[in-house]
Amino acid sequence: MIRLEHIGIAVADLEKSNALFEDLLGESPYKMEVVESEHVKTSFFKVGESKIELLEATDPSSAIAKYLEKNREGIHHLAFEVEDIEAEMQRLAQKGYRLLNEKPKRGADNKLVCFIHPKSANGVLLELCQEIRE
Amino acid sequence: MIRLEHIGIAVADLEKSNALFEDLLGESPYKMEVVESEHVKTSFFKVGESKIELLEATDPSSAIAKYLEKNREGIHHLAFEVEDIEAEMQRLAQKGYRLLNEKPKRGADNKLVCFIHPKSANGVLLELCQEIRE
Repeated sequence: MIRLEHIGIAVADLEKSNALFEDLLGESPYKMEVVESEHVKTSFFKVGESKIELLEATDPSSAIAKYLEKNREGIHHLAFEVEDIEAEMQRLAQKGYRLLNEKPKRGADNKLVCFIHPKSANGVLLELCQEIRE
Repeated sequence: MIRLEHIGIAVADLEKSNALFEDLLGESPYKMEVVESEHVKTSFFKVGESKIELLEATDPSSAIAKYLEKNREGIHHLAFEVEDIEAEMQRLAQKGYRLLNEKPKRGADNKLVCFIHPKSANGVLLELCQEIRE
């Protein structure tokens, strides 16, 4: 794991939460992005070498909508940047970590991503991510 | 906010969770510390410029014990490093953020800290921290 790439926070109302985090961090989101495949609208704030990603569901089928049915708004996942996502997925699967997707999939912010079940990691939903090099 | 200083994760069994995060991050905690005033045992892992702090309660009066009565193990707080904690506390209080301590208090890892109520920040318990310069 190279660094903490971002912290994903599930929010009910992205505009309202953007204003809140602007106040808190003293700057505006540097990017907003809709990820159609995940049914989410996201915004990104930079803090040092990491990012805060706010996520609002665009559709009831979204993982964020499902999360907010059972939980209050709050931290949804931690994402770690890795050099080689396939190698890291294989390493963790061999150690018994439960991967939520068998192949890397395309996520927000030009990344290949893989999620690890929170049961494997002390209740924390983890994301591995690797920048797409094109 | 200069950078994400650490992510605090509430755990029931520090030894077991240390082994789990060693596996995950590929390295051992670089420090273990008991914070008597907070009734917690902690361990720290380095990831880039940030840290993962695992927290186990040493006493039922600890905030971590109370957290684990109501919640499963998981992310407990996010800590942001600031240059001047008193100025930042004043700035956020003026904006209506609810601070959980009126004066900075001594936390783990040689820091002055102040917590912000999760209701003020989208369900996220925030910690401001400043290195103690002696």
